[in-house]
Amino acid sequence: MEKFEVHILGCGAALPTPHHFCSSQIVNIREKLFMIDCAEGVQMQLRRSHIKFSHINNIFLSHLHGDHCFGLLGLISTFALLGRHSTLHIWGPQPLKQLYQPQIDFFCQGIEYDIVLHEIDTKSREVIYEDHSVTVETIPLKHKIRCCGFLFREKQLPRHIRRDVIDAYNIPVCYINNIKAGQDYVMPDGEIIPNNILTTPADPVRSYAYCSDTMFKPDNAEQLQGVDLLYHEATFKKEHELLSKKTFHSTTHQAAEMAKLSNAKKLIVGHLSARYENEEEILNECKEVFPDTILANENMCIKV
Amino acid sequence: MEKFEVHILGCGAALPTPHHFCSSQIVNIREKLFMIDCAEGVQMQLRRSHIKFSHINNIFLSHLHGDHCFGLLGLISTFALLGRHSTLHIWGPQPLKQLYQPQIDFFCQGIEYDIVLHEIDTKSREVIYEDHSVTVETIPLKHKIRCCGFLFREKQLPRHIRRDVIDAYNIPVCYINNIKAGQDYVMPDGEIIPNNILTTPADPVRSYAYCSDTMFKPDNAEQLQGVDLLYHEATFKKEHELLSKKTFHSTTHQAAEMAKLSNAKKLIVGHLSARYENEEEILNECKEVFPDTILANENMCIKV
Repeated sequence: MEKFEVHILGCGAALPTPHHFCSSQIVNIREKLFMIDCAEGVQMQLRRSHIKFSHINNIFLSHLHGDHCFGLLGLISTFALLGRHSTLHIWGPQPLKQLYQPQIDFFCQGIEYDIVLHEIDTKSREVIYEDHSVTVETIPLKHKIRCCGFLFREKQLPRHIRRDVIDAYNIPVCYINNIKAGQDYVMPDGEIIPNNILTTPADPVRSYAYCSDTMFKPDNAEQLQGVDLLYHEATFKKEHELLSKKTFHSTTHQAAEMAKLSNAKKLIVGHLSARYENEEEILNECKEVFPDTILANENMCIKV
Repeated sequence: MEKFEVHILGCGAALPTPHHFCSSQIVNIREKLFMIDCAEGVQMQLRRSHIKFSHINNIFLSHLHGDHCFGLLGLISTFALLGRHSTLHIWGPQPLKQLYQPQIDFFCQGIEYDIVLHEIDTKSREVIYEDHSVTVETIPLKHKIRCCGFLFREKQLPRHIRRDVIDAYNIPVCYINNIKAGQDYVMPDGEIIPNNILTTPADPVRSYAYCSDTMFKPDNAEQLQGVDLLYHEATFKKEHELLSKKTFHSTTHQAAEMAKLSNAKKLIVGHLSARYENEEEILNECKEVFPDTILANENMCIKV
C-alpha cells in the first residue's frame, strides 16, 4: 500500500497546556506532506515527529481562531531560515489575505520563496487542491466564524501486475502501463488475454476527513460517506451539550454520531478540552455510540 | 533582600530548536513580573517555570523580529481564556500599533481586559516605566531594525530598623516609617537619637540590563555603569566577527567587552545560535575577556 498517514502534532482546544499543543496535523500521502491547521509550537512538534519541513508545500487552515493558526508566521520564517525555495500555498477562510499579507510583508521581508494565500469558501463543497495522487475538498462546518473541514481523497491507483503471468505470456515491458490501467493484452497471434488474468485489483482508494471546529452537522454525512478515517472534534462531554451548542462545538456523542452516520471506518476524536482531567471518559462516551474510536494524542501517527 | 530575579524562558537565536526556545524572559521584582520579549512557545515556558500569568502586566519588546515576538498573540489570547481583567501594557518599537492592533482586533474580539500598546523611541534613553519599586529605561541598540534594550533599576529601599534599639528607646510605631526613610528621632525630653543608631543601611540598589539584539555598541557602557547583571547577546563566536557585523549582532568577545566597559558585576550571554554545537566554547570565549560570565539556558533563574 502506498503511504497515507496522519501525524497529530497537536489536538488540544483553546490554549496550549502541559498535556496538549493546539490543533495541527500533517497528512502524508505518498511522501507529499499536507499540513492542516498550524498552532503555536507547530515547529517544535514537527521536529519531534521527525517530519521534513521541506516536504510541506500546502497548509490548510480550517478557520482563523488563534488555536488553529498562531504557529503560521513562525513556521513561514523558519522555512526561510532553512533555505526554502519552493512556493508555499496557504489555504484558509476570509479574511486570510487581509490579516496575513501585512504580517508576511513585515516579518518575512526578503525571504526567498513565494507564498500564495488562497481564500476558500467555507460554505460549499469544493475541490480546492488536486494533483496526480489526491484531491482535497472543503467540508462546510458550522462554527462561530467561517470554518471548514478538509476531505483528502486518494486517486485511483493502478492495478497490480502479476509478474508470473506477464512472464509466461512474454509480454514486452512497453505494454505494462496500459495493462496496469486495465487494458487487455492482444497476443501477436490475435489471442486476447483479459486484464483480470494479468493483474490483481488496485488497492482500494482511501480517504481522510478533518472536521474541527464545528457544532453537530449531520448533513455532512452524505459528503463523508464511507470515509476511512474521520477526525472530529469532541470538545465537550455529553453532559455539557448546551455549552457545546453555545460555543459552536460538538460533544463526544455528536462526534461519534457523525462517524456512524458517515459509515466511517474509524473515528479519531480531538480538540480536547483542558476542562476534563480524565480523557478516557471522552473516549468511552464516544465508544458508546461508535466503538471504533481512538483518542488523538501528540506525535501519534495513524495509518489511513 | 527583596526579590529581584530573572527567569530565562528562551535564549536561542532566529528559530526554536530542540535545544532552545527563542528570546523571552521574566524579570521578577518584588513579585511584580515584567516580561521581556515574547517568542513562540512562551506560554509553555511560563508554565514550566511555574510563573503566574496573572502577575504579568507589562511586556517589553526589544524589537519586532519574529524570534522576539511571535508568542505575543497566543499569550494575549491565553490571558483572556484564563479570565484576566487587569490591563496589559505592551511596549515596543514602531510599527507596534500598526502591526498588532489589527491582529488584536481580529483575534481577541470580546476579551475582557484592556491592552495598551506603547510605542517607544529606540534611539534615546528614556524611563518608559516607573512604579514605587522600579524604573525601566530604554537602552538604544543597533540592529537591522528599530531595537532597544531595557535597564531595570530598583528604587532605593528603606533602611532596616534595629528592633532592639527602637524597643530600648520605646519609640512609638507611628514614627517607624520616617525612621526607615532616614529621619532622626526626637525623644519627649528633646534628646535627638541619630538615625544611624536606630537603623542599619538599606540594601544596595540593584539593576539588570537586557541587551539583545545588537551589534557592539561601546557607548552604551556609560548608561550601564555598575549594572549588577548584564544580559547581552553573543550570537557569534569571535571567528565570525565579520558575519556578526553584517547581521548586526555581537560576538562573544564583544558581549564580554561590554560587560567589562560597563563594570558589570556579572554577565549572562544569550541569543545562542544553532550554528555552534558546543556552547561551552561560547562561554569560554566570553570568559577570556570577562571571567564572571554565565551561559543562559531555558528555565534558569538568576538572582540579581
